[in-house]
Amino acid sequence: MADGLNFSRRLRRTPYTDSVEVAGVRGFSVVNHMLLPKAFQTTVEQDYWHLREHVQLWDVSCQRQVQLEGADAEKLVQWMTPRDISKANIGDCLYVPIVDDAAGLINDPVLLKLADDKFWLSIADSDVLLYAKGLSLAAKLNVTVTEPDVSPLAVQGPKAEALLCKLFGNHIGDIDFFKYDWIDVAGTKQLIARSGYSRQGGFEIYLQGGHLGKALWDSIWSAGETYNIAPGCPNLIERIEGGLLSYGNEMTRENNPLEIGLEQFCALENPVECIGMDALLAIHQAGVDRQIRGVLFGDDPCPTCSTPWPVISDGNQVGQITSAIWSPRLKRNVGLSLIENSHWDEGQSVSVNLPDGGVDKGMVSSLPFA
Amino acid sequence: MADGLNFSRRLRRTPYTDSVEVAGVRGFSVVNHMLLPKAFQTTVEQDYWHLREHVQLWDVSCQRQVQLEGADAEKLVQWMTPRDISKANIGDCLYVPIVDDAAGLINDPVLLKLADDKFWLSIADSDVLLYAKGLSLAAKLNVTVTEPDVSPLAVQGPKAEALLCKLFGNHIGDIDFFKYDWIDVAGTKQLIARSGYSRQGGFEIYLQGGHLGKALWDSIWSAGETYNIAPGCPNLIERIEGGLLSYGNEMTRENNPLEIGLEQFCALENPVECIGMDALLAIHQAGVDRQIRGVLFGDDPCPTCSTPWPVISDGNQVGQITSAIWSPRLKRNVGLSLIENSHWDEGQSVSVNLPDGGVDKGMVSSLPFA
Repeated sequence: MADGLNFSRRLRRTPYTDSVEVAGVRGFSVVNHMLLPKAFQTTVEQDYWHLREHVQLWDVSCQRQVQLEGADAEKLVQWMTPRDISKANIGDCLYVPIVDDAAGLINDPVLLKLADDKFWLSIADSDVLLYAKGLSLAAKLNVTVTEPDVSPLAVQGPKAEALLCKLFGNHIGDIDFFKYDWIDVAGTKQLIARSGYSRQGGFEIYLQGGHLGKALWDSIWSAGETYNIAPGCPNLIERIEGGLLSYGNEMTRENNPLEIGLEQFCALENPVECIGMDALLAIHQAGVDRQIRGVLFGDDPCPTCSTPWPVISDGNQVGQITSAIWSPRLKRNVGLSLIENSHWDEGQSVSVNLPDGGVDKGMVSSLPFA
Repeated sequence: MADGLNFSRRLRRTPYTDSVEVAGVRGFSVVNHMLLPKAFQTTVEQDYWHLREHVQLWDVSCQRQVQLEGADAEKLVQWMTPRDISKANIGDCLYVPIVDDAAGLINDPVLLKLADDKFWLSIADSDVLLYAKGLSLAAKLNVTVTEPDVSPLAVQGPKAEALLCKLFGNHIGDIDFFKYDWIDVAGTKQLIARSGYSRQGGFEIYLQGGHLGKALWDSIWSAGETYNIAPGCPNLIERIEGGLLSYGNEMTRENNPLEIGLEQFCALENPVECIGMDALLAIHQAGVDRQIRGVLFGDDPCPTCSTPWPVISDGNQVGQITSAIWSPRLKRNVGLSLIENSHWDEGQSVSVNLPDGGVDKGMVSSLPFA
């Protein structure tokens, strides 16, 4: 790991890090001050094809849970998100944009309702816990904000359901998308949801108790051998093709939920008691002047996109690509970009300025890519 | 960088990243969602000896500024820290622990007072901005919380002062420790403080305007050639020897300022209006039962410390080492550890359990190490 990260306690290991190292992880990224495996096979393409055909085990412990518990827990969640959570039932998972007073995005977690007075926010890469603490302390709410010992492990790919039914019972197959149920792991009751950061289907197990990590990993691994299981991680090709957004990449505090395509998760008709609601309604009334789209571009693999790339039409910038990679299936580069309303129609011709000075011809696409 | 990080916009590049790549950086860490160079020369020891003898240029842009501006800015800062900031003057830098309601540490930034109603918190690795936003929004304070376009560049080492006097004028030599003044950079006025994350002396330039990054880097680099300037970064050997703590390593929300040795930065005699003050006073009254110390141990270089290592005496755990490395000067490993009060006296014999199963004999030391 000499050329990788400087490992330290600050970049927290997970209950599965030992296992992913044994499984041949090729390095890590950092999300929420925690290690996230970045690749296993020699190329991202190999991981991609495997994910589309078989089943993979992903250490996504970095999806930390922010637990809100107490009489005011629901009020606090609602304060942070423009999505109406009042109708949520125990057993539901809800994708909830979190916003500040300007409707700027702070995170885009999945909300799990555990009880009427207990919720988890399964977060992307920002310290939502500190936002929740700040709100709660200043408003003197009756809620305890903690990061519990919960380490999500994802099982993704078309064979995930068969594998988990074999291992944990056929009730797994009855779990609807974005619902959760329970399984037994080493004598403990653990939460399992049909969800995950891919479009290939699968589940996420929210393991409580890090000491059980190796046992859980090993049991799924053993049961998965007949399904050609492999270690994996969120795959950039599959993510972009599927139009899955990434906090910090496609959205920052500079963006509001409407331009990022999250209108369906905002209670615009019957506004809720959310801190950014007024700002969001004003943006909605005025209409957004840019929105997230796909861009198909170039005939050769593009480099890594680590700063936004200008999207150009007639010499004017009409957008910026924030994530991009070569699609071996579509034989073009696929990118995610905010695009001005003058140019956001599907099929619009654009060009993309690459960091090496090259210019690729491209075309606006709806999301997900075909 | 195939074996390093997966670069993406989320892991933000800095105004100096191009320059540090040209200078031969050997990889990056991630702090505040931003790249921090991790090493330049072949070994950390080479960087260490150079830092002690010459001058280094460090890209510490990841020390993001949380700007608090408005009539209630001072009130909000005071709410977050148990240090009395009422006597601070414009031109002062103050090390301020940030705590939650349980006096758990959220960050340990440097506070810069820019005006009576404008402050910067130069933060370690957690989203203090979200804590400040949460507090401010819920309490409806008159304060604007932003992350301005400010990218600190550190000039560290015994020759830093001579170099910067030559480049920016002799008034640099008149800046006291933890005070700031101003310099001209490409026609702009820029803040420079005598501070930095080493014990070798030096300055930090808080560059406003990322487009000036290359010009600033190049001008210091050119002027530094006669001083044997080299690219560098916070050095683990020098940091531990100097007893400099790292948020996320030596302290987390599980720790209070008193056990981490920050009592001098807490207004215990004349308490201030800080959210965690009551909890801190209660801890102070009860007395802490563990405190940060150094541990000198082993006769051979220890491995990387990425999870806490138990410190043992008579078969009982009396502490945990959270950062450690071989000191080529002291010819022993140096570690930072919380130590129980029964064993925290200097010279106390202890042993250290290493992750490979080995046990090193060691001794408790005061900080900084000799």
